[in-house]
Amino acid sequence: MFISRLFTFLSLLLLVSSERIVRFISTDGKEYYGDAILPANTTDAAKSTTARVIQGDVLGDFKVTNEVKKIKKLLAPLPSERVRTVRMVGLNYVAHINETNATIPGWPILFYKPWTSLNTPSDPIPISPGYQNQTNFTSTMDYETELVVVIKKKAFNISDDEALDHVLGYTVGHDVSHRGWQVDRGGEPQPQYSMGKGADGWAPWGPAIVTTSLIPDPQVLNLWTKVNGVTMQNDTTANMIFGVAHLISFFSMGVTLLPGDVIFTGTPKGVNLGKPNPVWLTNGDVVEVGLENVGTCTNALKYVP
Amino acid sequence: MFISRLFTFLSLLLLVSSERIVRFISTDGKEYYGDAILPANTTDAAKSTTARVIQGDVLGDFKVTNEVKKIKKLLAPLPSERVRTVRMVGLNYVAHINETNATIPGWPILFYKPWTSLNTPSDPIPISPGYQNQTNFTSTMDYETELVVVIKKKAFNISDDEALDHVLGYTVGHDVSHRGWQVDRGGEPQPQYSMGKGADGWAPWGPAIVTTSLIPDPQVLNLWTKVNGVTMQNDTTANMIFGVAHLISFFSMGVTLLPGDVIFTGTPKGVNLGKPNPVWLTNGDVVEVGLENVGTCTNALKYVP
Repeated sequence: MFISRLFTFLSLLLLVSSERIVRFISTDGKEYYGDAILPANTTDAAKSTTARVIQGDVLGDFKVTNEVKKIKKLLAPLPSERVRTVRMVGLNYVAHINETNATIPGWPILFYKPWTSLNTPSDPIPISPGYQNQTNFTSTMDYETELVVVIKKKAFNISDDEALDHVLGYTVGHDVSHRGWQVDRGGEPQPQYSMGKGADGWAPWGPAIVTTSLIPDPQVLNLWTKVNGVTMQNDTTANMIFGVAHLISFFSMGVTLLPGDVIFTGTPKGVNLGKPNPVWLTNGDVVEVGLENVGTCTNALKYVP
Repeated sequence: MFISRLFTFLSLLLLVSSERIVRFISTDGKEYYGDAILPANTTDAAKSTTARVIQGDVLGDFKVTNEVKKIKKLLAPLPSERVRTVRMVGLNYVAHINETNATIPGWPILFYKPWTSLNTPSDPIPISPGYQNQTNFTSTMDYETELVVVIKKKAFNISDDEALDHVLGYTVGHDVSHRGWQVDRGGEPQPQYSMGKGADGWAPWGPAIVTTSLIPDPQVLNLWTKVNGVTMQNDTTANMIFGVAHLISFFSMGVTLLPGDVIFTGTPKGVNLGKPNPVWLTNGDVVEVGLENVGTCTNALKYVP
């Protein structure tokens, strides 16, 4: 009796809320928002081949219907045009700071990527000639896996305690970086990260926004990077210096965060930067970035003319 | 005869092109785009009280009509929502680099402001508690006058020679800066400028986009700052290290610049940062930033709870 009631209650819940918001092209050629249906034995939404169609605005009021559509291609969870601002965090894991010979910051380090850098979880990462090998200037392309926060509710001067109420959910992102343009040519004496990280397509993200109902605590998730199948980063969000709640509250200081804004929360140890013998990414290299219970993005670097 | 023909020719030109694109609320309470009509003896579009109404899209096809409307309030030349990306340049004038004890950069220093920092040429600049004086942390609010470029045509991997063809025109902007958050608390060892410059309303700009027909060469213009009527900066865009054409081409490296994107091109000497006895801006201070043949923004700092 109790079990049956519980089941009915859960079924009703499923009809109105979403756990893994995806955007996809279906076999009918049309674009949909959906609640991804996971195949057996995986929590990686990138493996989903079907989804329940979402009606309404995923940044406002919406509901999950019973209509199931096949997924032909998973897109980024929001169109780039709906992400108004892409905030990024630098140096937010102690072991990563140590490997890059940096100093532990007293306050979160904020920088931005332009919205044009957003990419799908599967398309190539274009590398223009200016970022390829040149005489006396190496193409120092590097990977960075990060937990990404998606804002659902306007936030301005909010406290840490209020912060997570403003979150729609979490996904994984790849902060593609050219270390030469980021640091050596980023400007003296205070290199700005913008030139080394902001090219078109240098921020793959998705495919699913896993909502806070499924991830009440974002600080307990494993995250990893594989380059051509070999694990290069493997750590946990528990090692963040500044947790998600504080990042949101800090960035809202005199600043309005808006629905659809995303925050890439920094990368753990294991990048090439700082290694004695770095193996920089090059044309054709396939990078998988993953976040536990969320999913993966798998994108290949592609040299373009 | 020749003079009369010339006059006719010029009148026809005036009907189709715009020299000083403004956006304003008229006395009928409605919002218009217009071609500002300058009063006698000034080229400051902020002094305009009338404008010819523009029909169409100022970032696409448009024409100036003969309908003249009164200006009740000048707005920023584009709504913030149409400016997708706000690029900023650091350390682009040698004398400013020297006064702040910085090093001349080998490549342009790029950073971003979020679009929410854009402000009108006359509204208050809000200063939230986090940027006001605190125990052991001074409110180091500073001014920076800059020439602002407005992009009209998509640009990707373009050359310096092609760059100015992608410009709609020029206006003046104010890169409002909190030096403590920008540098001391910007992050170690590489302070990012974002926290000290990105608050809501910290980028007044406008009121007119003066088109390239009137300013074929952006490197010959005086620019200045007055604080409470006293001149603090007074220099010329001829002193830029990296000129407008190179900035556009450089920032288009692997990056799509879009119509409506703006670039603040750096500030000349005369700011408080680096002064032995800085007089930081405080509640109620009125800052005028001006650019020759373009106009002025006049905004007061306003402490908000």
